[in-house]
Amino acid sequence: MMSNDWQLDPYLKERIHLTESALDLYLPGTETLPASLHEAMRYSVFAGGKRIRPVLMMAACEAVGGTPKQVLPAACAIEMIHSYSLIHDDLPAMDDDDFRRGKPSNHKAYGEAKAILAGDGLLTEAFILLSSPRVFTDLDGEKRREVINLLARNAGSRGMVGGQVVDMESEGKEVDLPTLEYIHTHKTGALILAAIEIGAIIGGADAEQRRALCRYGEAAGLAFQVADDILDIVADQDELGKDVGSDQERKKATYPALLGLDGARERARELRKLAFSSLDVFGESARPLREIASYIVDRSF
Amino acid sequence: MMSNDWQLDPYLKERIHLTESALDLYLPGTETLPASLHEAMRYSVFAGGKRIRPVLMMAACEAVGGTPKQVLPAACAIEMIHSYSLIHDDLPAMDDDDFRRGKPSNHKAYGEAKAILAGDGLLTEAFILLSSPRVFTDLDGEKRREVINLLARNAGSRGMVGGQVVDMESEGKEVDLPTLEYIHTHKTGALILAAIEIGAIIGGADAEQRRALCRYGEAAGLAFQVADDILDIVADQDELGKDVGSDQERKKATYPALLGLDGARERARELRKLAFSSLDVFGESARPLREIASYIVDRSF
Repeated sequence: MMSNDWQLDPYLKERIHLTESALDLYLPGTETLPASLHEAMRYSVFAGGKRIRPVLMMAACEAVGGTPKQVLPAACAIEMIHSYSLIHDDLPAMDDDDFRRGKPSNHKAYGEAKAILAGDGLLTEAFILLSSPRVFTDLDGEKRREVINLLARNAGSRGMVGGQVVDMESEGKEVDLPTLEYIHTHKTGALILAAIEIGAIIGGADAEQRRALCRYGEAAGLAFQVADDILDIVADQDELGKDVGSDQERKKATYPALLGLDGARERARELRKLAFSSLDVFGESARPLREIASYIVDRSF
Repeated sequence: MMSNDWQLDPYLKERIHLTESALDLYLPGTETLPASLHEAMRYSVFAGGKRIRPVLMMAACEAVGGTPKQVLPAACAIEMIHSYSLIHDDLPAMDDDDFRRGKPSNHKAYGEAKAILAGDGLLTEAFILLSSPRVFTDLDGEKRREVINLLARNAGSRGMVGGQVVDMESEGKEVDLPTLEYIHTHKTGALILAAIEIGAIIGGADAEQRRALCRYGEAAGLAFQVADDILDIVADQDELGKDVGSDQERKKATYPALLGLDGARERARELRKLAFSSLDVFGESARPLREIASYIVDRSF
């Protein structure tokens, strides 16, 4: 049971701290050869970020009665995969971004070759961690297999990587709403959904709870992207740490471009509503999930 | 028991065919979205190659009494990882090779961005496959976990990717023998060793058999690289499908550069001898492994 004075901010802080401490523990240190590679890998993992996927995984696990610590290895693995995707996205051949979260992007700091390999290393490290004999010692082997498969599928060519490809191929073209939703349900949505579904599995969700959390995850994932698109237009550079309006400049397909700013905000509100109603089967244990959905959408208003 | 008229060539052909049929089955087809991504992934996987890692995995499994089909999903997964590593190695920021096995390299055929993502997709696909509920249905869950962990560790920053980083950092520098052996035991050796150890695990090797096969794998892996270095100097372009002497041109550290051509051949012979003696605990069941070690070394004479 959560008390009335429950607040999102300390909740997030505690889980972000938990995630970052575990990442520091799990990632090879710079004393491990090759030092420069592990330095480059750590540079991007510890460059900040909202840790929204780990937090959502923990919140989903808590919604079904589990604890944040139960999912820690998977929370770190998903964050490693998210970090690798940002490194590769920023490469000159891809989005060619010199800055990420206000700091030089990985290839600006370490060179293009090292950045490619740091990304490869982080992606692989996620699966080293998930299959390590030192983690998930209390988790049923079949559940571990399912967690690995779910994360890999959502990160791969029919998930995140696929979304990135369609996004890239759509650049400079007129894109319709179904294509835009394909891009985002894959490029961003797939990992967010994986985070929530993995939290559900590890927390011991029954079939109904798992379906409800997946509906939440789909809505929250899309809401996250709509909000990001809106923020790209309206936010200060300081707040976002990348060039404001950079999506517009590259003629990337965005929700505000397709629906207008008001239409995009309306869509974000609808998605928040959908996320909320998906959680009707849960009581107070899903309060963090509800508050996070609001937080995701509200930052774009 | 293997008969006296046993021959390596049909043995290899059969196992290569088995591997390629399974790869075709396991890899998403070009009817799966995004089509262009799956086309690029398949382009490199089916660009030819000796399938030495799958063949070694099968031979190790057979040495301890298993069958080639038992390891098929893992054989395909390791080949996907090998293919991804070649795609990323060929990129302009890395080795900048326009050709691979006589065909345009992936980024020449599909562009740099798609090639990066095709590599990412293949690496991830390996773990989708290994954790799929449709494969390894007879394999103990703990063994599956061990297979995933072994492949990931040998492919990652302390394995293949690490070797690639040190290789890259050594370009144009004087490199001593220990550094050269570090590069090769990691860049090439790690996946070869993983292939053999995974074959041993799935085939049901006992501790002594597994140690023996690992010794074989270390020797064979290094022999493979020494032979490759020699071939880079002496082979026709036709035979190798890449620019002859291209390692020399880029001042890459090689065994012939460090030991001379005769010294490198002597090293290859020593490694073959070591590979052979590692297999003393096995009888006829290890004949394919012995013949493969000879084949690896002999092609450089």
